[in-house]
Amino acid sequence: MTASEILPLVDRFRAVVGAANALTEPADTTRYLVEERGLYFGRTPVVLRPGSVAEVQAIARLAHETGTPLVPQGGNTGLVGGGVPDESGHEVVVSLERLDRIRDVDPAGNTMTVEAGVVLDTVHRAAEEADRLFPLTLGSQGSCRIGGNISTNAGGTAVLAYGNTRDLVLGLEVVLADGRLWNGLRRLRKDNTGYDLKHLFIGAEGTLGIITAAVLKLLPRPKSVAVAYAGVASPEAALRLLAVARNHAGPALTGFELIARIGIEFAVRHIAGAREPLGQPSPWYVLIEVSSGGGDAGTMLEAILAEAFESGDVDDAVIASNLEQTAAFWRLRHDMSEVQKFEGGSIKHDISVPVSLVPAFIEEASAAVVALLPGARPVPFGHLGDGNIHYNVSQPVGADKAAFLRRWGEVNAVVHGIVTRLGGSISAEHGIGRLKRDLLAAVKDPVEMDMMRAIKAALDPKGILNPGRVL
Amino acid sequence: MTASEILPLVDRFRAVVGAANALTEPADTTRYLVEERGLYFGRTPVVLRPGSVAEVQAIARLAHETGTPLVPQGGNTGLVGGGVPDESGHEVVVSLERLDRIRDVDPAGNTMTVEAGVVLDTVHRAAEEADRLFPLTLGSQGSCRIGGNISTNAGGTAVLAYGNTRDLVLGLEVVLADGRLWNGLRRLRKDNTGYDLKHLFIGAEGTLGIITAAVLKLLPRPKSVAVAYAGVASPEAALRLLAVARNHAGPALTGFELIARIGIEFAVRHIAGAREPLGQPSPWYVLIEVSSGGGDAGTMLEAILAEAFESGDVDDAVIASNLEQTAAFWRLRHDMSEVQKFEGGSIKHDISVPVSLVPAFIEEASAAVVALLPGARPVPFGHLGDGNIHYNVSQPVGADKAAFLRRWGEVNAVVHGIVTRLGGSISAEHGIGRLKRDLLAAVKDPVEMDMMRAIKAALDPKGILNPGRVL
Repeated sequence: MTASEILPLVDRFRAVVGAANALTEPADTTRYLVEERGLYFGRTPVVLRPGSVAEVQAIARLAHETGTPLVPQGGNTGLVGGGVPDESGHEVVVSLERLDRIRDVDPAGNTMTVEAGVVLDTVHRAAEEADRLFPLTLGSQGSCRIGGNISTNAGGTAVLAYGNTRDLVLGLEVVLADGRLWNGLRRLRKDNTGYDLKHLFIGAEGTLGIITAAVLKLLPRPKSVAVAYAGVASPEAALRLLAVARNHAGPALTGFELIARIGIEFAVRHIAGAREPLGQPSPWYVLIEVSSGGGDAGTMLEAILAEAFESGDVDDAVIASNLEQTAAFWRLRHDMSEVQKFEGGSIKHDISVPVSLVPAFIEEASAAVVALLPGARPVPFGHLGDGNIHYNVSQPVGADKAAFLRRWGEVNAVVHGIVTRLGGSISAEHGIGRLKRDLLAAVKDPVEMDMMRAIKAALDPKGILNPGRVL
Repeated sequence: MTASEILPLVDRFRAVVGAANALTEPADTTRYLVEERGLYFGRTPVVLRPGSVAEVQAIARLAHETGTPLVPQGGNTGLVGGGVPDESGHEVVVSLERLDRIRDVDPAGNTMTVEAGVVLDTVHRAAEEADRLFPLTLGSQGSCRIGGNISTNAGGTAVLAYGNTRDLVLGLEVVLADGRLWNGLRRLRKDNTGYDLKHLFIGAEGTLGIITAAVLKLLPRPKSVAVAYAGVASPEAALRLLAVARNHAGPALTGFELIARIGIEFAVRHIAGAREPLGQPSPWYVLIEVSSGGGDAGTMLEAILAEAFESGDVDDAVIASNLEQTAAFWRLRHDMSEVQKFEGGSIKHDISVPVSLVPAFIEEASAAVVALLPGARPVPFGHLGDGNIHYNVSQPVGADKAAFLRRWGEVNAVVHGIVTRLGGSISAEHGIGRLKRDLLAAVKDPVEMDMMRAIKAALDPKGILNPGRVL
């Protein structure tokens, strides 16, 4: 499109949402165009902020009619270039932030109906006010929005017990590519009337439809929560500890996070107030959380640790003795992304493998990465209970940061090669977006790529919804 | 197709699987053609029993080339005409029963990879041998096959804690309509690389592909299980008891089943050995099951009942004191379908509504049904915790059975009208098949019907997979 084509089109979009909600000035639009990590900085003719579902429909109808690409956006906390426009200047941003009503809370039915723009923390608070739990827990929960969480099938630290975002959604309301509205806002636990369409839109990163509202599952709030750090000799020992923990706590095991010693060292070195969790250093740490509907979380956690001491899998452990210490334990875990910034360049991976293969993955990946880049420092950490490891690699001490980061693709190739051989995923929780789009064909079955393209063509025949993301 | 066209085609299919596994004699084929309740009795030119995935692919390729309709079949325990051929005599049955290998059990990763033809009971036993639980629990578990459970997204009595079959599947292997194989046999807890295709095939009743294998989730076996019957005055009281039970047991609440007094009366009258669960009759009964990874299931159940006695929601309760009594308690619940046969004709519904609306649904439905058919006896029972009620209606005492059953459609219309108004589903767990296909358009948004048709066309463009089922 040329500028003379775009300008009248902007006027037509502006007429849908009103001048105040059609942003074109850089001072207004920049925050919608740049991603948190700074990897992407796009351009747009206009950022639209619809205030109703009907306006989202009108935007989609106009885009469908005119072949205008739309980029739906939530809280813009994504990490793979899925929610910001590209550099072409043709993609119109549709921010869902004004659709921020909680439409309904049903404590007896354990559901909440929310619009796409509700911030995750607001969902948490509304659940608490109804004496319920909405368990999705992410570092960005103060700014990410539920529509984005659903469109990316967000993970986080509570997946072990409660599943991914996908598992917490009962129904969806979606504006389709041609502007029609699908009302799939079901509040049902069971519904076997045809294809389960909601799962297509969840995790589709806005490429199949624009999610405008959702029915979320609520859960009982746990009566007691107990958290501990345990020191273990190896990922294998951590895996045995996981089995013990599951046997004692079953579904009450709500967190099981692995951290390599180097991550704790980074935190203690760089974060004010961060403290060694155990009296003596340990090669690996496990953060265990047990949450119970009764008062027995502490008892379960003690039983887990007692058995693991007995078997020799745990060398030392500390149970948080109060809420403050519990918060500090979790903060140390959540600091793991931040602390790497102080140690120079960091090459990231968000991978998963079958849970039982995590130790093999870490061993093989670290050997391969250090062979490729001597002195490089792997900092693996993450959700062992889900098989999801953030396998990040810090630069060698004293190396040139830019030169190190230029090896990003090479390191990715080595690590993703091992992941693929182990039957794993190159994007466990962050999605594909633009960052990993060109890696997909290398790791996916061509049959699967064909099916995905067929579905995209069936639901978005003009290819106007978030084009170039995922596929 | 004419007979002269079908016969050479049968020869070509026979060549794929071998003569011994291409059944054409009525003595051999009948069990593949008739459904358990006797509502459907189809015809087929041949029943194929492939012995490998490659043979299933060859069958699909040939069917695709020749436009031959295929009806995939598991254990043939479905209730909606989805797994038996129609009366045309043109539909070829593909029985998956010879694909019955357990390919892999991974206790550390909590997964099991099974072929479609493995009987559900066999899956249970293999999980137990690995000290794990596969929680899907159905009346037909001795003969239904896991591929059919997945294709129909089977429900059952353990959905409250563990979800539907959909929630217990990590990966699938599927033969597509053109014979290509999709290897989606992932053993991952997290994988955000593109559209989640497995959820399309789960519950699609064989209309989008033929499932040949699956990766199932395994869970820890509970260390203690406690079961009780509680007498409550009304479905509202049962709902309050559900909230109390969830608050005390959280995810350890593994069963919560509602039974109307009339169902217990029928059982005591007709089933040898069936006994009143409580000392005094109660208008409604709740079967509660708590399963714990620790030894405290009994303690939790006692706490639930103590609070409910205190609040007056429970009038009387009995906790099973041993395994035999536990089994008897569950048997009484599972007898509910059977006992209705002794009381004459029964018009069935398998509905769900939002959990909090179950009391309103039962009240409205019973008033409407009795107004329509004075003397008719509603026998509601089922999975209150999931909002899924088997709302069956027994004929008036002494009425003519055939005359009563002729009112089936009328009664359905009244009940489904209430369900739809309450935002519910007309098929909570049994699926659509042929039985409810023509009801779908009445209860579904046309936008949703269009999306389903678009996806069907994208994945099965010639319409050869289980045609006329679902859509």
